[in-house]
Amino acid sequence: MHKSLNPNQDLELTWRNDKNHVIHPYANFENFSKEGSTVYAKGHRHFIYDQQGQKYLDGIAGLWCVNIGHGNEELAAHIGEQARNLAYYNTFEDSTSPSAANLAAKLASLCPGTLNHVFFGTGGSMANDTAIKMVHYYFNMLGKPKKKKILSRNLGYHGSTYLAHALTGIASTHIGFDLPKDDITYLSTPYPYRKPEGIDSHSYCDYLIDEMETKIIEIGADNIACFIAEPIMGAGGVIVAPEGYLGKAYALCKKYEILTIADEVVTAFGRLGKMITSKEMFKVQPDIMVLAKGLSSGYVPLGATVISSAMHEVISRPKADNPYFSHGFTYSGHALACATGLKNIEILERDGFCEHVNKWGPYFKEQLTTLEDLPIVGEVRGSHFMLALEYVTDKKTKTSFPMEVNIGKRIYTASKKRGLIIRPIGPLNVLSPPLTYDKDAIDETIGILKDSILETVTTLHKEGHL
Amino acid sequence: MHKSLNPNQDLELTWRNDKNHVIHPYANFENFSKEGSTVYAKGHRHFIYDQQGQKYLDGIAGLWCVNIGHGNEELAAHIGEQARNLAYYNTFEDSTSPSAANLAAKLASLCPGTLNHVFFGTGGSMANDTAIKMVHYYFNMLGKPKKKKILSRNLGYHGSTYLAHALTGIASTHIGFDLPKDDITYLSTPYPYRKPEGIDSHSYCDYLIDEMETKIIEIGADNIACFIAEPIMGAGGVIVAPEGYLGKAYALCKKYEILTIADEVVTAFGRLGKMITSKEMFKVQPDIMVLAKGLSSGYVPLGATVISSAMHEVISRPKADNPYFSHGFTYSGHALACATGLKNIEILERDGFCEHVNKWGPYFKEQLTTLEDLPIVGEVRGSHFMLALEYVTDKKTKTSFPMEVNIGKRIYTASKKRGLIIRPIGPLNVLSPPLTYDKDAIDETIGILKDSILETVTTLHKEGHL
Repeated sequence: MHKSLNPNQDLELTWRNDKNHVIHPYANFENFSKEGSTVYAKGHRHFIYDQQGQKYLDGIAGLWCVNIGHGNEELAAHIGEQARNLAYYNTFEDSTSPSAANLAAKLASLCPGTLNHVFFGTGGSMANDTAIKMVHYYFNMLGKPKKKKILSRNLGYHGSTYLAHALTGIASTHIGFDLPKDDITYLSTPYPYRKPEGIDSHSYCDYLIDEMETKIIEIGADNIACFIAEPIMGAGGVIVAPEGYLGKAYALCKKYEILTIADEVVTAFGRLGKMITSKEMFKVQPDIMVLAKGLSSGYVPLGATVISSAMHEVISRPKADNPYFSHGFTYSGHALACATGLKNIEILERDGFCEHVNKWGPYFKEQLTTLEDLPIVGEVRGSHFMLALEYVTDKKTKTSFPMEVNIGKRIYTASKKRGLIIRPIGPLNVLSPPLTYDKDAIDETIGILKDSILETVTTLHKEGHL
Repeated sequence: MHKSLNPNQDLELTWRNDKNHVIHPYANFENFSKEGSTVYAKGHRHFIYDQQGQKYLDGIAGLWCVNIGHGNEELAAHIGEQARNLAYYNTFEDSTSPSAANLAAKLASLCPGTLNHVFFGTGGSMANDTAIKMVHYYFNMLGKPKKKKILSRNLGYHGSTYLAHALTGIASTHIGFDLPKDDITYLSTPYPYRKPEGIDSHSYCDYLIDEMETKIIEIGADNIACFIAEPIMGAGGVIVAPEGYLGKAYALCKKYEILTIADEVVTAFGRLGKMITSKEMFKVQPDIMVLAKGLSSGYVPLGATVISSAMHEVISRPKADNPYFSHGFTYSGHALACATGLKNIEILERDGFCEHVNKWGPYFKEQLTTLEDLPIVGEVRGSHFMLALEYVTDKKTKTSFPMEVNIGKRIYTASKKRGLIIRPIGPLNVLSPPLTYDKDAIDETIGILKDSILETVTTLHKEGHL
């Protein structure tokens, strides 16, 4: 343990305040009641420090979001200045702030096609929630009130409001909640590593697309409003669909007049080496683009729902019963948040973050892939700075570990001990570091992961799990 | 027009960027397409400046939220420092930041009774959305899956996510959206100024409570999960229930084992002269407290859902099917947002903001009430720094203006021209200024309002509306 960063602070009290009073997102109450939290107090580039001063490589960028890196002096100074000048004024109806106006224009210039109209919120959940509310409104304005069903996908992650949670196709997360799932159909995960038996790699994409079309016909295109998808699945396990899948899925949507929502909360703003990936990497043109996380590098909560001019034209038509589009949040177009987003994008572009990711992303994946030689690493997958390892007890049968082994968490714990934070998600570990991650950080990450996996394998042998 | 605050900035371009690219909350697309927005660029205490340098009294604190006042140097410096130190790290499962931990403890100390457990989000909508998800989860854990119906109230305002919008009992806002209203019952607004004919003031409270009990019996207490209410209704029109109403409603909830949710997004943090009002002003003890706005004075988006120890005990019980409480947002417990909340509360308490509001609130209301002598002012109502004027064409019959007269907006426009921003809501204007509002600001506000109302009355006569 190093010297405390804040010697005057009662570190024990802070730890206890957390334990007694914070309900954590995705709390595991039983473990938490014993161990409490690690208190992270300071960050710098891709390093993070706990309140005892212990240093860690932040392999997950806070939570896939601190793209620019922690403690960026230029961004922090800008935030302080904007807070002094104008932190907040509402943007309802006919008020705005310079930062909301200019960030909206910037996003319109970054997003492909006619994605020119921006509704701001404070994060990805809210942005997806807004997207669906807008889709409802759009089809009601068009006089097609039956066109409301939603196509999502198993293991798709779209957030945690009541509605965004329902969009999320991770069934285990639904347990205990009453979510509005009646209008949602979850298509199969496009998951090459776990494709059904008897389907070969070449036909897997068509198999998925055939299933999608069968579902559309079964439900009836007249009843289907939209298809929501992450270009690469994030929290569901960094799952990369087979080549061409997204293009074919979008083509089906076009054929059946189904709106497309690209949830780029994780993929945008440089993580895959592009500011926006849908068009440039995946060759698709969505009707709605959902942005958050890297948009502000997480410094201030911010999200955005960007819609096409065609959708905007319909939504903005005069209506007799109520002249208002009655949707909006106090913090829509928040001056400080939007100023943070604008400066963040300026720095990302000016300092070549995408170029850096394009240069080091392939090396990162290549190095991580060498870990496939280790016993329990079933697959290394992902792209650029969005990667994951999936663990199995047997590589041939691809058998997963029993839930109680908690394999992802074990290797997370072993890595954390060695100074690296990765994210445990069930049988996986995810890597999504700040885009400042350099060769040294990549090499250290691979080294720690290797040691942590090998140590865990030894323990698993001793325990009889292998 | 004064000299521009940012002479180098292209003001016209900013205005155009907003017009072309921002979808405003509660947009009135038809008006907006002609006139665009006023661009607010700077704030200081209870003054706000547009980008041409025009100065306004901010009579609405941004949107009932900048309680501490704009451009607070101490808070802004703290924000800049925290952004440099650590803007964000996730607080999932067993990670936290000092500011999340210590703000949770502070909120537990401020909230009455055993409201000791805090789930953080980024605003009021999300906090209400979370409250209902928690209520669902709680009754499922208790093995009472049928106990899910929600009692809300007509004109209650609870936000704008899919679920929070459904909780909101303002029917005109529902038009065009498909909201999950099946499980929600909207009780009558406790609205003394517009109580039903034949009910006198003394029996009105009992009339409302009788209606509530009748509804409970009709629906069946076994099917009802919770009752959600603002202590004083906000966006529904600053409606103050008859004395004793809330206590009696809470007593019914206790009798029928219905959880109580206090939506204190507007009322808390000094606007009514108390940090939290439920217990101290209204003598009720909620099971769930919902906070936002004044919590961070709007400087950084922040909200909180605070639950009782009894609820927490149930929610945190081990469960076999999934050890996780699968709810949470990237920005739950956001380090910068929570640090802002902590410092904001420290300043509010240290500098006597509640004392100031308690001193000047009665004067403000008394002065505003003198405007009831003007022709169209039907009622002045509210409390402390949360006030409204309701306009009518005839004071005896209390007849409202036709919608197309847009009376609230007209007087807003007349006031804005004179350097005062108030909020138009249908037939009302709302006043909810920063808590820095002093005698000069109050007097100037009353003067401008008087002139604006009189000018509008003259115009209405000319147009034949009076």
